[in-house]
This record gives sequence, C-alpha cells and structure tokens, in this order.
Amino acid sequence: MMKVLTVSAHPRRDSLTTALHDIAVATLTGDGHEVKSSRLYEMGWKAAADEADFGDTTAGDSSFMFASGEAFDNGSLSPDIQAEQDKLRWADTVLLHFPLWWFSMPAIMKGWVDRVLTMGFGYGTGPAAKRYGGGLLDGKRAMLVVAVGGREENYAARGINGPIQDLLFPIEHGIFSYTGMEVLPAHVVFSANRVTPQRFADLADELRERMSTLDKIEPVPFRRGDSGDYHDRVLTLRDGLETPGTTGFDLHRRIAR
Amino acid sequence: MMKVLTVSAHPRRDSLTTALHDIAVATLTGDGHEVKSSRLYEMGWKAAADEADFGDTTAGDSSFMFASGEAFDNGSLSPDIQAEQDKLRWADTVLLHFPLWWFSMPAIMKGWVDRVLTMGFGYGTGPAAKRYGGGLLDGKRAMLVVAVGGREENYAARGINGPIQDLLFPIEHGIFSYTGMEVLPAHVVFSANRVTPQRFADLADELRERMSTLDKIEPVPFRRGDSGDYHDRVLTLRDGLETPGTTGFDLHRRIAR
Repeated sequence: MMKVLTVSAHPRRDSLTTALHDIAVATLTGDGHEVKSSRLYEMGWKAAADEADFGDTTAGDSSFMFASGEAFDNGSLSPDIQAEQDKLRWADTVLLHFPLWWFSMPAIMKGWVDRVLTMGFGYGTGPAAKRYGGGLLDGKRAMLVVAVGGREENYAARGINGPIQDLLFPIEHGIFSYTGMEVLPAHVVFSANRVTPQRFADLADELRERMSTLDKIEPVPFRRGDSGDYHDRVLTLRDGLETPGTTGFDLHRRIAR
Repeated sequence: MMKVLTVSAHPRRDSLTTALHDIAVATLTGDGHEVKSSRLYEMGWKAAADEADFGDTTAGDSSFMFASGEAFDNGSLSPDIQAEQDKLRWADTVLLHFPLWWFSMPAIMKGWVDRVLTMGFGYGTGPAAKRYGGGLLDGKRAMLVVAVGGREENYAARGINGPIQDLLFPIEHGIFSYTGMEVLPAHVVFSANRVTPQRFADLADELRERMSTLDKIEPVPFRRGDSGDYHDRVLTLRDGLETPGTTGFDLHRRIAR
C-alpha cells in the first residue's frame, strides 16, 4: 500500500483539474492506499516566499537561501511550511495536479515548491551537496497530472510550443529529480478547455487506470547525480555516455527517448 | 528614447537581484529613458490568480481562461491588474528581474504573469488566435535579468541542470514571444550566492554596459507564428526549414545557435 500526497492547484471547484484530482484521490483511497491532500486554493496557501517564513531566524548577512536552511535547522519555519514538510516526509508518492499556465505551474503551486522545499529539506549545499539523489526526499516517487489547454500537435516534436516533455523538464528533472525523487511519466490531458461529457468519462477512466497501476509504473530514466555519470565537482556529463547526436535535456536520461 | 517597464521580484532589499535592478533603473534613467517599475514584493503583489480578479464578471459555465477574457473585455479586472496592463501598454521595452528559483521565476513573478497577461490582453483564441505575433504586445522588446545560484558549468551544454537557454525557453518563447514580444538575449549572472565586493563592481559595470546598449541589441531569432514557417492550423513547423539534425526548442529559431 502506498502513502500518497496529492497537491492540487486550480481556483475553480468545477474545473477539469479539480475533477481529475477528486477522481485520483477516490481511486487511490478505494484501492486501500493512504492519501493526504493539499488543495492549495482551499487552504489559502501563501504563494510568495519571504522572511516571515523563517520565524525568529534572523538571516543576518547570509543569502535568502541560506536563511531558509538555518530556519529549517532551527525548527523555526512557519507552521504552514512545516505541515507540508511533514506530509512529504510521510509520503512515499507525490502527485502534483495543475493546469499548465504559461508553460509552467500556476503561481500558487510554484509558491508551494519555493516555500516547502527549503535548503536542508529539499537539498543541501557544499561538498556534500545532496542534489539529484541522496537527499531527504530520496527514493520517493513523484508524478505530474497536467491539464493543457492547447492541442497535442502544438506540443509535438515540431509543435510551436515545444515538446511537452521538454517544457516539463524544469519541473520533473529540476524539482523532482533534483530533490532525489524518482519521476513517473506525467499524465497529460490536452485540449483541456474543450471537454465534452463523453470525453470527460473517457478521461476519468484513463486516470483511474493510471492510479490503479501507479505502484507498477517504471520511472523516467533520469541519471542520478551520484551515479558516476557526471564529473565530480562541475557536474557535467562525462563524454561518450549518450547515444551519438543527443543534445540538451535528453543527455540526462540513461536511456534515449 | 525608450519607455521601459522593469518588474523585479526578490524578498530582500539587500539581494543581488534588487541591487542589479536598482542599477538598471538608474542607468536607464540617467541615459534619458523613461522608466516605470513594479517592485512586486514592495507592492505586496497578489500572486494567486482567482475569480476575485475578474470583478463583477460572473464566469458562468466558461473556463477560468475565458472568464479572464470576459473580464478584460468588460473592464472589470481588478485595479492592480489594470494598472500593470496600463504600464505594459505604455512600455516599448520590458525587463523582468528575478533570481532563478527551481529553474523558473519566483511564485510572486509567476503570479504577475498569470494575472496580468489575461486572454484578450496577452493573447486571443479561436481562428484569429493572436499567438506568437499579432497581439496587443506585438513589437515590444523584452529581456530577462536573472541571478542564478549555481555555477555556469552546471548550466552548460553538458551540465546536469540542462542548458540555461533551454531552461529559459518556457519564459522567453512561451511568455514573451507567445504574446508577440521580441526577446532580447537574457542577462544571466551565475554563482550569484557568492558575490564578493570586487565581483559585484564588475557585475554592476557589465549591467550598466548592457543597459546603455539595450536599444541596439539584436533579438533572439525566434520564428513568428504568422511567418508562414508553421502549418496553418496545427502550428507545427513545416519540413525542411531547419538545419538538419536540429530538434526540440531549437527548431523554433530561424537561425541556428
């Protein structure tokens, strides 16, 4: 049985994102998994990170990032952040549900990432830098469930918006993999502004099927930072590991797409 | 002379982002350009888009996006959004200053994008879809000024984080170019957590030089949606336009990197 944290971000109760989130929670619960949910709009989640988040930790001369790490070490992070960190510690699986706004997550969810994944919790720094593996979130599995307004063709290999997998790389690799989490392939629904009742029934079935097999899904084969694939200090990929001709984000997959 | 809107987002007055923003504003003003600034933390900018943004427009059955377009058409968008739209209409040049947090902009700035670039203002929909050229923001020039904590090598062609230009593509192409703005190459400062006074003096000089030549900088050669390079309805790139072997985001540049 899994312990699943779901985080959802849509301002409307009657949105596709909210409906699919409800279905995911119901399916997982029905299958006997434990589920905790953070519905960010309903919680009135504070989006903008600021020094009030650090409680009585005075940042002094250190940067904002180091101040977040000191507040984590001191246990002085604000209660809303500590509550989310507790949920993340508890969970073995994390689902983020959101509509794709401007090719990324809505601000309120970005604010969940910015504020909850503090230094010390989401990553370390310095010689023992826990990045891309080895951190507190190591080994958890994470997945995006994303509603995209545009057509799938616009996000295909030659689509004007760019390939959806590349657009999600800053999140899947830069947030999930960076903090040590395994990435399950995103569940993406295109043309999400034009959903008929018949299509909604199909989308609901597809998501139920996905949730029922969540514990069996193979993760995206991103390379780990501690795998030996990267030069030790500069963290650039060693020569010769990729399929010839591979460039950009794809270099950071052990197995070519 | 330029009319420049600068938008900045850092929670600390003594941050590198804030210092570089101050220098940009002072340089541009000193050179005789008109400057308006939105300092999002000082303004207490609301980050999370919700239906309160739409004033007395009742969304009814339409999606959140269409409701934003109706509120724009009705003139009922909340005053803070209308004020930012007025600044954008006025400006011919837009600078966004922020620290790279989780490979994207801080939540408060994402909330500026989410809330200000409403349907009807930032883009249209339907057959006359004003996207990637042809919209209200057409022809304005926009640039990012980004402070990056990590080392430049980590963002190089083989760096573990992915190439910085690809990480910024969802913003530069997906927000600026999408709304019709020309994109000026980003001004990126790496190792931004470790800035000595001597290095700061150099960084300040580099930014002053950049600001003094801002009106002469050539834009990134992103393809326009209305250039004929894309198939009409599906907006996929026509065959044979790219240098052989080009894939991913690079397909959407007229001139190879």
